[in-house]
Amino acid sequence: MPKTYSQVGPVARALELLGERWTILVLQELLRGYHRFNDLMDAVQGITSSVLSARLKVLEGHGVISRKFYTEHPPRADYHLTRKGHELGVVAGAMAVWATRHFPDPSMFVHNVCGDPIDVAYFCRHCEHEVRGAEVELIIPE
Amino acid sequence: MPKTYSQVGPVARALELLGERWTILVLQELLRGYHRFNDLMDAVQGITSSVLSARLKVLEGHGVISRKFYTEHPPRADYHLTRKGHELGVVAGAMAVWATRHFPDPSMFVHNVCGDPIDVAYFCRHCEHEVRGAEVELIIPE
Repeated sequence: MPKTYSQVGPVARALELLGERWTILVLQELLRGYHRFNDLMDAVQGITSSVLSARLKVLEGHGVISRKFYTEHPPRADYHLTRKGHELGVVAGAMAVWATRHFPDPSMFVHNVCGDPIDVAYFCRHCEHEVRGAEVELIIPE
Repeated sequence: MPKTYSQVGPVARALELLGERWTILVLQELLRGYHRFNDLMDAVQGITSSVLSARLKVLEGHGVISRKFYTEHPPRADYHLTRKGHELGVVAGAMAVWATRHFPDPSMFVHNVCGDPIDVAYFCRHCEHEVRGAEVELIIPE
């Protein structure tokens, strides 16, 4: 299990899962469509099999991925993001967009319909527009 | 300096900075308006002064925060997010929104204008609307 922060609040809770080294890189490859252990090993360069195995177990325990056997003899499983897991895509996306903007890196994320750069932003589906950080409020019921 | 991943790509590059334990929690408190070392120590429960000091140095080295002296005798500095740092707010926001949605936690992020839940999403300023992940493309120039 991940080390825990003596912290409350949603960011700290997300970090209990996401804050471990390698976890977000494993998630990124699952989002890209790698599902099998050996393919994930190849995709996440530098990860060891024991670390990958541990991270997959934690992600499965949190319901972020599900494991399915694709052969019975020998038993071989692959890993698929659940809906909860797919919703983490924007976390990796937010990091990636920030990095392409601020590191000396010629790559960029664009909207493939118009070709303009993509942002990651707070968005209100009710108002159907982007929301500034100052208009975001954390509600904690009594 | 942070440990490096033997990885390329913008997510890995962002993680060189953000992937160290405590860094995002420190960022969160800077976003909330804590600027002084002792206030950050109080806000990030459980962090040690040596870890906080190390994280602030790395953030300053990456241009995410700037340090300003507010008294000369004795020398006392405070820390402010740069524009590059403020733009990391949505990374913490994306984690927080995901956590409030998926952990058994009664708190939620709302748009303080209409009261509806907030999302974090890919957004195209040119098209002025939300963009699905499938419409986001990473362009790597030759």
